[in-house]
Amino acid sequence: MKAVTTVKEVRELVKEWKKQGLSVGLVPTMGYLHEGHASLIKRAHEENDKVVVSDFVNPTQFGPNEDLASYPRDFERDCKICEEMGADLVFHPEPSEMYHEQHTFVDIDTLSETLCGVTRPIHFRGVCTVVSKLFNIVTPDRAYFGQKDAQQLAIIRKMVLDLNFDIEIVGCPIVREEDGLAKSSRNTYLSTEERQAALCLSRAVRKGQEVIAKGVASADVVASMREIIDAEPLAKIDYVSVVDALDMQPVDTVEKDVLVAMAVYIGKTRLIDNFSFNVD
Amino acid sequence: MKAVTTVKEVRELVKEWKKQGLSVGLVPTMGYLHEGHASLIKRAHEENDKVVVSDFVNPTQFGPNEDLASYPRDFERDCKICEEMGADLVFHPEPSEMYHEQHTFVDIDTLSETLCGVTRPIHFRGVCTVVSKLFNIVTPDRAYFGQKDAQQLAIIRKMVLDLNFDIEIVGCPIVREEDGLAKSSRNTYLSTEERQAALCLSRAVRKGQEVIAKGVASADVVASMREIIDAEPLAKIDYVSVVDALDMQPVDTVEKDVLVAMAVYIGKTRLIDNFSFNVD
Repeated sequence: MKAVTTVKEVRELVKEWKKQGLSVGLVPTMGYLHEGHASLIKRAHEENDKVVVSDFVNPTQFGPNEDLASYPRDFERDCKICEEMGADLVFHPEPSEMYHEQHTFVDIDTLSETLCGVTRPIHFRGVCTVVSKLFNIVTPDRAYFGQKDAQQLAIIRKMVLDLNFDIEIVGCPIVREEDGLAKSSRNTYLSTEERQAALCLSRAVRKGQEVIAKGVASADVVASMREIIDAEPLAKIDYVSVVDALDMQPVDTVEKDVLVAMAVYIGKTRLIDNFSFNVD
Repeated sequence: MKAVTTVKEVRELVKEWKKQGLSVGLVPTMGYLHEGHASLIKRAHEENDKVVVSDFVNPTQFGPNEDLASYPRDFERDCKICEEMGADLVFHPEPSEMYHEQHTFVDIDTLSETLCGVTRPIHFRGVCTVVSKLFNIVTPDRAYFGQKDAQQLAIIRKMVLDLNFDIEIVGCPIVREEDGLAKSSRNTYLSTEERQAALCLSRAVRKGQEVIAKGVASADVVASMREIIDAEPLAKIDYVSVVDALDMQPVDTVEKDVLVAMAVYIGKTRLIDNFSFNVD
């Protein structure tokens, strides 16, 4: 496995692979890899001849009061995981390699304006922009994203359609700790007490999965989930919502495929979790 | 030469060419081709193994009160010109092939906010979006744009850098009628009298080229050009500006490479013209 820091090096390698007719999978990450990322890399390795992992804490997707500076980093450990999971190339650029007086942004309306987009208004513009750049740098056949960031996944799928990227987007299931907590690089922020409190998210997911059914009012699903989170003193709800699985707009009744998503502060740490429900 | 209407057909052909190791040049146009377009196709033919011309009046770059509906079209004649100039493929999609509930847009700030961006606030967002789509559909090695749309050319160059498109942007000189009028599909809107009046643009360009020199105040260049246009009763100035050649921001004194650009209404027809001036 190789690790490189420049766009030029990535291009040269990928062009060599393409000349040999090899397929390329891309796993875009912000590093500090956990088993969720590992499952994406493993899947990419199974489905492609070559796998590129990008490891870049993307500044343009953080708001001014968010955790860009404190976001956890451990590149050496990341490389070990990438190698174990079968990656061929890790792209680990400096911010200055990715952005020089950036004036161009890829933005998506509607889908970015609900759920996490409410408290993080520039987040998905940053995501779409950096993912477009990575797509143009790596030119993968397939790209892998986790279902934990469900709104991000829906947005990337729509962006690929709208901008005609010739790339298959593969969504992969949430990986959880044994006690149910969804794996996240941000779990490292949690104190022992908060780590315990954070279980209210996955408990609420399970409750929602019990309550939801075709024809049920979204408000009932949400109420059943909020009750569980409200019972946890360290938890403060950002949102719990039932939205259309494609356009991320709120629905009143579960009559089509939906995403049930939430963001909850545990102390100062903002965690997300979700489940999808398909009608029929 | 082949003419196709679907993204799928373009992709299949281009992939076949790439497999054979052939280089591809793209000439994006809105059709109603004139000698300016022809010069781009000819240049693309000289520099690439295969040439794709897109012929698509892009709705997203027209404002609500602009000339989308009346924009001139003559696909049969376009095909003849493409073939004569050495094009291999003409891509002529319906709007529904290019846009289905588009939510994603590529936008560029700063460079799009001066000159034509003032009166056409969504124009360059539409241009960046459709050009990004065409780049992803055709995946050319080189793309050709005319210097007549100088702001567009500067914006595309910056977009390519910012989004890491692996495409060489080739800017080609303005092609003029014998009497100096810059070739434009919109010249067809002009009455005989207006056609005569429209010569004030190229006369102003020649005047500006005489006046400009390193250290000259931009206001003096602009004044010399405005004087010529103001003398023409059918002409109404939208703008005459001296801007930095790279970021399109106004400059007070000619001390670095600049673009001197203007937009002038001749009757109801809005025409543009410009020249570049390199210091040293």
